[in-house]
Amino acid sequence: MYEERIRRADLRSRIVSADTAQDMVKDGMTVGVSGFTRSGDAKAVPRALVKRLEQTMEPMGINLYSGASLAETDTLLSEHNVIMRRLPYQSDRSMRSRINSGQIAYIDQHLSHTAEWARNGLLGDMDLAIIEAVAITEDGGIVPTTSVGNSPIFVQQAKKVIVELNVSIPLAFEGIHDIYVPENRPYRQPIPLWAPSDRIGSASIPCDPNKIEAIVITNEYDSPSPIVPPDSETQVMANYILEFLENEVRQGRLPKNLAPLQSGVGSVANAVLSGLKTSSFENLEIYTEVMQDAVFELFEAGKVSFASSCSFTLSDATMRKVIPDIEKYRGKVILRPQEISNHPEIIRRLGIIAINAALEVDIYGNVNSTHVRGTHMMNGIGGSGDFARNAGIAIFVTKSTAKHGAISSVVPFVSHVDHTEHDVDVLVTERGLADLRGLSPRERAKIIVEKLVHPDYQDQLWDYCERAAVKGGNTPHLLSEAFSWHECYDETGDMRNLSIWKDDLVPQLHQTPSSVTV
Amino acid sequence: MYEERIRRADLRSRIVSADTAQDMVKDGMTVGVSGFTRSGDAKAVPRALVKRLEQTMEPMGINLYSGASLAETDTLLSEHNVIMRRLPYQSDRSMRSRINSGQIAYIDQHLSHTAEWARNGLLGDMDLAIIEAVAITEDGGIVPTTSVGNSPIFVQQAKKVIVELNVSIPLAFEGIHDIYVPENRPYRQPIPLWAPSDRIGSASIPCDPNKIEAIVITNEYDSPSPIVPPDSETQVMANYILEFLENEVRQGRLPKNLAPLQSGVGSVANAVLSGLKTSSFENLEIYTEVMQDAVFELFEAGKVSFASSCSFTLSDATMRKVIPDIEKYRGKVILRPQEISNHPEIIRRLGIIAINAALEVDIYGNVNSTHVRGTHMMNGIGGSGDFARNAGIAIFVTKSTAKHGAISSVVPFVSHVDHTEHDVDVLVTERGLADLRGLSPRERAKIIVEKLVHPDYQDQLWDYCERAAVKGGNTPHLLSEAFSWHECYDETGDMRNLSIWKDDLVPQLHQTPSSVTV
Repeated sequence: MYEERIRRADLRSRIVSADTAQDMVKDGMTVGVSGFTRSGDAKAVPRALVKRLEQTMEPMGINLYSGASLAETDTLLSEHNVIMRRLPYQSDRSMRSRINSGQIAYIDQHLSHTAEWARNGLLGDMDLAIIEAVAITEDGGIVPTTSVGNSPIFVQQAKKVIVELNVSIPLAFEGIHDIYVPENRPYRQPIPLWAPSDRIGSASIPCDPNKIEAIVITNEYDSPSPIVPPDSETQVMANYILEFLENEVRQGRLPKNLAPLQSGVGSVANAVLSGLKTSSFENLEIYTEVMQDAVFELFEAGKVSFASSCSFTLSDATMRKVIPDIEKYRGKVILRPQEISNHPEIIRRLGIIAINAALEVDIYGNVNSTHVRGTHMMNGIGGSGDFARNAGIAIFVTKSTAKHGAISSVVPFVSHVDHTEHDVDVLVTERGLADLRGLSPRERAKIIVEKLVHPDYQDQLWDYCERAAVKGGNTPHLLSEAFSWHECYDETGDMRNLSIWKDDLVPQLHQTPSSVTV
Repeated sequence: MYEERIRRADLRSRIVSADTAQDMVKDGMTVGVSGFTRSGDAKAVPRALVKRLEQTMEPMGINLYSGASLAETDTLLSEHNVIMRRLPYQSDRSMRSRINSGQIAYIDQHLSHTAEWARNGLLGDMDLAIIEAVAITEDGGIVPTTSVGNSPIFVQQAKKVIVELNVSIPLAFEGIHDIYVPENRPYRQPIPLWAPSDRIGSASIPCDPNKIEAIVITNEYDSPSPIVPPDSETQVMANYILEFLENEVRQGRLPKNLAPLQSGVGSVANAVLSGLKTSSFENLEIYTEVMQDAVFELFEAGKVSFASSCSFTLSDATMRKVIPDIEKYRGKVILRPQEISNHPEIIRRLGIIAINAALEVDIYGNVNSTHVRGTHMMNGIGGSGDFARNAGIAIFVTKSTAKHGAISSVVPFVSHVDHTEHDVDVLVTERGLADLRGLSPRERAKIIVEKLVHPDYQDQLWDYCERAAVKGGNTPHLLSEAFSWHECYDETGDMRNLSIWKDDLVPQLHQTPSSVTV
């Protein structure tokens, strides 16, 4: 059985049930799992582990490292308090609450950096890797499924490997992946990739067959991505970006088919990318970390000639169309390790146009991608920093308000900085687009307030800028009020209450002279 | 005359006085000049320009773009209000005050990014480049002096070029430089450099000889760097780093001769590097943006086998030793364009150990490198971001206090973020070293307060951390107090007054419950 999928005969005897395999997970272990933004994740073994823990009631703690966010595994393992340490990204509600209460030590990392840490021993010994695969080759090579993530480095570093062989993913996936693992320093060579379609590695993850201690057969698709459909505001934002890119072409700063595009995880970025369907651009290339529905819509619309990423993260409907028909995309898509999809060397070389979502931005162009009101982790920085820092053009998008207008996404000072002013070229809201390139901080503030801010907040932000400018500096601020918008929201539930909230304050003994005039 | 230095006969007729050459600088122009951290800068023409402006009293405004900070040019041109826009780095007192008053639009940029902007037309038309050189070759190639900086891209992009031929710099400098300019996208290839000593380019900057409209003869050394000698605290910091690196070798995370070292501009970074003289390490390699005195001390001590950088920035004494004797260093040093010395591709490939100075750091490891109390620009981010983000190990150093103890360099929330928590591996003060790798934000806060903070501030910072932790979150903060240390300093001149200053406040109506207990 499974001759086609387990091509090395001696490994076929290692097929076991998930219930048997899960027993390899022991208290205190460091476990690396496949999975990137809900796709290609190990499914059966974590589920069986939780079943055991429910039955035995034994306490257990493991360090769980992945490519990016997982689906059910993050939910189940955090609900059962199994996870001590987690990196580099997650997006799960249960896990998030334990991260924010301090129960889980969460290391929010650039997605291209984890492999370097693993290689350098900074993640400690990797006791076990659990990797979803479509096949195992004659020499033990593991052919991944719908994502590559950090699986190559985890397999390389792990003492033992469990393979979840997912027979619902067609064997035709073999050849879609391109596995290239940079050498150890100081012997590392340039990565020989200079176009998104370049193949530089192997079709499977090299693995010593003796490390594969168990193979578990599974038969289920990835948990679908809950894609929010584009709305009128995201279409407007896409149109601003289209106009901007068209102008870059006219100015001779981009070729007619642009530069390879990256678009971050999530609905807004997906919707914005999807908006390119209506553009006049052709032969677009994608070099990104995650292909969401929008990429396949662009393929359908004949706009994209090639797409490289690290995972497919699709809605249920798109998954059911694309997965069985993957043959159709052979020669048009590549899945790479996240170290390569997000590598600064490649991103800088290709001059990628990077489009990522922001949680909040400030008047000088700093971006918060991760922390709600500066303290509570939402998901993580993901690959946004890998791309923004090294991109040809780094674009961040956010709607101008959140919570039905009670929160302005543009504030005096972001409550957490993930991307500094040095790394942000263009900001977009449904109100407009601000091209910050070549502008000083004071100039940036002017264009940001003018073009991006919701009218409900514009006067209030002008007021801050003007009073701050009096205090002076290259980057004027009133530190005593820098976070007042967040404080006002915390206390009144609406940032629009700022002036009332301030008037309520007893005389501000410790305000600086320039701010006494409030 | 000057046959040896101007090898193309027809160019010898273009020798003019600085007074004549400066006339090429016109109001409204964008001018690119050689010069990186005070070295290899154009000297005579800017000086002559100022003389003309003093005589004619005509108003003039230009955009001045360089490699990094200039010496006299930044002082003179800003004092005469000639500069409208400046990038990517400066360190001049007069210029700083005009930047902070908003008179000069200053774009504080990663030093590796400027060349990409110039290439993409984002700096506008470059009307003129003024480049210091030791020689001009038969085909018009310009051999730089003590720095390369952005000269290659400025020469490539400029309509006209003035060469300042500095005869005080020996011709033996020819062959010290390695000029490699990445191709335009989308045709860019990997940069074929995988060791600090690799030569990948030419000895001179390619230049169409017709663009060289004037050659001015000069005969003076660079303005010397005011190097502050190491003190007992910087030696202690160097020792912490030494111990740390020795342990990395023991753990097998670094080879015996470490990885190539980078050390930032300024006295603390220089002193720390100089401290490696007393180490047991040998055959060290340097891959950095600026060679200060310390690098030559390490050569003398037999510790360093090769050093690559973008400039020599030396004290008067070291300059007088090294410059005339440059032949001695042939085959041991290379000067490269800053796009290459600071390129993410190379820094990541080499796994550089990056040591840079911080202005202030916070309890979660964010670093402010640029803005005094969040508003007033000191110098600029320089190359610290290029290196820290892509380094094998990113180390930031700062003394634990400033202004004789009145300022704590470790604060609850840095008042400006140049390097985010994602990019900072190790922090060092004279109190100790904090290895932040693999730690969650709460864990980082603990080790930072424990190991780095001056005793005068430790209780006060524990107090903040504890009360913030009650509020919760992955990165606990009390936003209403996040900048209170800075406010307290602004108003009382000493951050140690925090508790008195707080008690002075009338009841804090708008404090959140957890902070009412102050």
